[in-house]
Amino acid sequence: MKKRLYSKIPLSQTLVALCEAKGIHHIVISPGSRNAPLTIGFSEHPDMQCYSIVDERCAAFFALGIAQQLHQPVAIVCTSGSALLNYYPAISEAFYSDIPIVVLSADRPIERIDIGDGQTIRQKNVFENHILYSANLYSEMVPQSTIEDDKVRQKQHESQKHNEREINLALNTAIEQKGPVHINVPFYEPLYDKVEVPTVVPKNIPVEYIEHRISDKLYDSMIAEWNQATRKIILIGVNFPETIDQKWVDELALDPSVLVLTETTSNIHHSTHINCIDQLISPLSDTAFDKLQPDILLTLGGMVVSKRIKSFLRKYRPVTHWHIDEKKAYDTYFCLTEHIKMKPNSFFSEFLPNTKKINTNYKTNWIEVRDQRRVMHTQYVETIGFTDLKAFEIIFGLIPDHQSIQLSNSSTVRYAQLFSLNATFRVFCNRGTSGIDGSTSTAIGAAVASGLPTTLITGDLSFFYDSNGLWNDHIPSNFKIIVINNRGGGIFRILPGKEESEKFSTYFETKHALTAIQLCEMYGIKYTAAENEEQVKMAITALYSDSNSPQLVEIFTPRKDNDSVLIDYFKHFV
Amino acid sequence: MKKRLYSKIPLSQTLVALCEAKGIHHIVISPGSRNAPLTIGFSEHPDMQCYSIVDERCAAFFALGIAQQLHQPVAIVCTSGSALLNYYPAISEAFYSDIPIVVLSADRPIERIDIGDGQTIRQKNVFENHILYSANLYSEMVPQSTIEDDKVRQKQHESQKHNEREINLALNTAIEQKGPVHINVPFYEPLYDKVEVPTVVPKNIPVEYIEHRISDKLYDSMIAEWNQATRKIILIGVNFPETIDQKWVDELALDPSVLVLTETTSNIHHSTHINCIDQLISPLSDTAFDKLQPDILLTLGGMVVSKRIKSFLRKYRPVTHWHIDEKKAYDTYFCLTEHIKMKPNSFFSEFLPNTKKINTNYKTNWIEVRDQRRVMHTQYVETIGFTDLKAFEIIFGLIPDHQSIQLSNSSTVRYAQLFSLNATFRVFCNRGTSGIDGSTSTAIGAAVASGLPTTLITGDLSFFYDSNGLWNDHIPSNFKIIVINNRGGGIFRILPGKEESEKFSTYFETKHALTAIQLCEMYGIKYTAAENEEQVKMAITALYSDSNSPQLVEIFTPRKDNDSVLIDYFKHFV
Repeated sequence: MKKRLYSKIPLSQTLVALCEAKGIHHIVISPGSRNAPLTIGFSEHPDMQCYSIVDERCAAFFALGIAQQLHQPVAIVCTSGSALLNYYPAISEAFYSDIPIVVLSADRPIERIDIGDGQTIRQKNVFENHILYSANLYSEMVPQSTIEDDKVRQKQHESQKHNEREINLALNTAIEQKGPVHINVPFYEPLYDKVEVPTVVPKNIPVEYIEHRISDKLYDSMIAEWNQATRKIILIGVNFPETIDQKWVDELALDPSVLVLTETTSNIHHSTHINCIDQLISPLSDTAFDKLQPDILLTLGGMVVSKRIKSFLRKYRPVTHWHIDEKKAYDTYFCLTEHIKMKPNSFFSEFLPNTKKINTNYKTNWIEVRDQRRVMHTQYVETIGFTDLKAFEIIFGLIPDHQSIQLSNSSTVRYAQLFSLNATFRVFCNRGTSGIDGSTSTAIGAAVASGLPTTLITGDLSFFYDSNGLWNDHIPSNFKIIVINNRGGGIFRILPGKEESEKFSTYFETKHALTAIQLCEMYGIKYTAAENEEQVKMAITALYSDSNSPQLVEIFTPRKDNDSVLIDYFKHFV
Repeated sequence: MKKRLYSKIPLSQTLVALCEAKGIHHIVISPGSRNAPLTIGFSEHPDMQCYSIVDERCAAFFALGIAQQLHQPVAIVCTSGSALLNYYPAISEAFYSDIPIVVLSADRPIERIDIGDGQTIRQKNVFENHILYSANLYSEMVPQSTIEDDKVRQKQHESQKHNEREINLALNTAIEQKGPVHINVPFYEPLYDKVEVPTVVPKNIPVEYIEHRISDKLYDSMIAEWNQATRKIILIGVNFPETIDQKWVDELALDPSVLVLTETTSNIHHSTHINCIDQLISPLSDTAFDKLQPDILLTLGGMVVSKRIKSFLRKYRPVTHWHIDEKKAYDTYFCLTEHIKMKPNSFFSEFLPNTKKINTNYKTNWIEVRDQRRVMHTQYVETIGFTDLKAFEIIFGLIPDHQSIQLSNSSTVRYAQLFSLNATFRVFCNRGTSGIDGSTSTAIGAAVASGLPTTLITGDLSFFYDSNGLWNDHIPSNFKIIVINNRGGGIFRILPGKEESEKFSTYFETKHALTAIQLCEMYGIKYTAAENEEQVKMAITALYSDSNSPQLVEIFTPRKDNDSVLIDYFKHFV
């Protein structure tokens, strides 16, 4: 076996060793020279899984997909200069989606900033608005002579101490608080020298896991309030599969006063859940809203997709809103009462045993409405012609069990919300910033990390936006992409400003005539087009019958029919 | 003629009116809903040239290309959320290249930040490290009732005042200081309403042009020093064509003590110039460097490409370094004495008339060396096989006069530096941050704005990085692209760390097997491949014989030969 080598630069050794100590094993590297000490250090490490991705925007989203699945930080390594800035869209997504990403940006030494050197920008704290911690490391020039005097030694020692402390702090923050951190790493030349034995042994400061508990007083008052309330809504936002034990889901299902509302991205299922929120609430009258308005709103998970539920709860505010999350609580409905800093399972295991079920027809009434809506949904979708809505109906009906599904923003995830999806699906979407910018890269990263059969369902704008996402040597052979190509940003046809004018189709809808066929040829992805029901059925069936290479199905829907069909869908329930 | 409409929102009217007042007429819009008031305002304005570009990264570089050519600010308009962050690579390039860009980011009202709303991030001051000014505007909700009480009126009035002041300040800064500014624009819904008559008439605060002059004392001492010095180097960095009057160039050429060093991007020519710096200095011995070391270094223009000249001047420092630039002066050589805040023409017209020419053989000696090198260059390039170097020789020989040439980073611009380019070329390269990230988009923007026949010469990594740059409806039919495809980041084979290993070719060179043919098919660009001398000659000749549609020539060079041929090139002169 070839002997493992290390970068000669102590700072590189320190970073690699501390990443290892914290359990960071996935490293996404973009090419460059200034980052050579890190590239050498990580790629020589036998337990580091390194990936090479040229476009840093894609590299960061790919890392996001890995970290989304593993719940462990993924490091992204780039050279100095604007390279780093291309990470920013994914960093902001990680920030709002609570996904740990460690940015390792190589830099020139500080005295070389703003003196006209190439590929040199102001990297220090550059992600300030959307980062949990920014560590700015020191670099020491390697002395040219072998006579190291005490002063040089002392300075090196101090820098090393500073760097170890800062790296520990940054990595621990990424793990403890689940989010992005930035470590800026200046290097002096020479950058490519290697040694066989590391010259530093950095100290690992352990990660601290703090478990919060509710005070007895708060607990008692919460129990009292809960046991009084006859209308309780539990609303679950973005939630990783298996985060919440089924026994709590079942327990809650037995309480007639508790209505659980879930979304496509909630990854939690029960026959008593309201799983298509918009389908339920969009046709409601003020009187009906009055009847739905909860006394207590208990929220779990991350971002909520449905705009309608937000408007509803902002207008018909509950008396009490508790959010259960270890890290943060947004006051989304302008009535947040308590942020319970606990894991949902811990909370339920402490809380539910002391609650009592309240006899009311709140839940059964709404489930009845839900069931009517489901029938009407089916009736409506049967009547409509071939459109986005119809395509989604066919797709979701044909995707096999246990598929990991990545949805792009924003039409795709909104359409998906209208369907009762197969409960064996695992569904993900970048809802932190809800950008259209990195869906493909994220999906590929997630597929690589989870090892699960994964399908990306995406609109055309989002797909073409992240076309470089396919420039990736790691796409698993069972990775599938379904592009709903309605020739533009179909969502703009649904939003209030729609008009049939040249200006509208140019600047809002952004009409185009692109197809995915050439990108598939370029990147070795098997391509199939479909433009009617029959073709979609055949194509989707074929998509899952062969997993020898990545495949893409592009579904062309009639641009101008989609919006009226969707608008009528909601009218249909009234 | 259709009546012009305005967004109903006063803030949109204010921005459009003030952009118009400042002479901003090019607006690059990316699709979105939150920015609808701006999209409506600009696209309805008869004197605004609007462009629709979906990928914000490309949109910003496209705008950079326009502003690079026009020396006028170009506005880029995007929706809220991560869209904005995709602008950052181009913003940093604009910051370091002194190119005026006005970012207009739509935002949600401030109370909707960090409460879980979609497409919402912390946009305020998000470009802090690389922006000349960040204006954070206020938004006022349109009162729901028609009874506007005095308090509401007063608040609206104050917001309007604040916004007008901030917009003026931001736009004036972009113009006066030539660089990027960010205006963050929150909007309340409804976003799509239009009116026929604007409801506000914002006040335009005029741009101030300050002309600096040298103090008499400094002037006298500079003249005295200049007239004493027997060795003077004028080094010209990135410089827009026709910035410096030919009469000053001719005047300086007559002084035997003045050696003018130019680069590919200096856009200035004279038979006495050292126009291939690396060719001249790379083989020099310490003794020769001693002879070249100037007493006075006078620098003009922006970034300098040649690393060798930087190392030389840092080691063999002049006694005096003056930088002539209205805006900024970097202490690139660690010996900056004076920053003269004047335009080069103004400086020369005041300064040169009082200088005297000094009789010395400094210039003639170095021109002699230059001429020997040119002969050796020609001899060497004749002997070599088909490689990058050979390809560039053929290309530069066949590009017709008066072409605008856009070079990508970093191999391309470095190779170009080795050739005595046709003096009628106008040559540009994003050297502010020297990124590989937006060359194609910049080149297309420049071609659109200048109306000149334009050729982008790019390496494969840079080309594929900005593949979405081609997703652009405005590519002129006489726009040409030449891709030198050496199957990876060839520059890494030249840098010191090169080794023939799997790790090296994966993480440094980033070897790939991509070609541009599918992207050309996708975006309707005529494609030709060439993989030997004869084919390159034919393809480049054909490229310029037809300008009915955009065209691309992809030149495949042998990956493994390029580095040795280039290394031998420099050895050859010794």
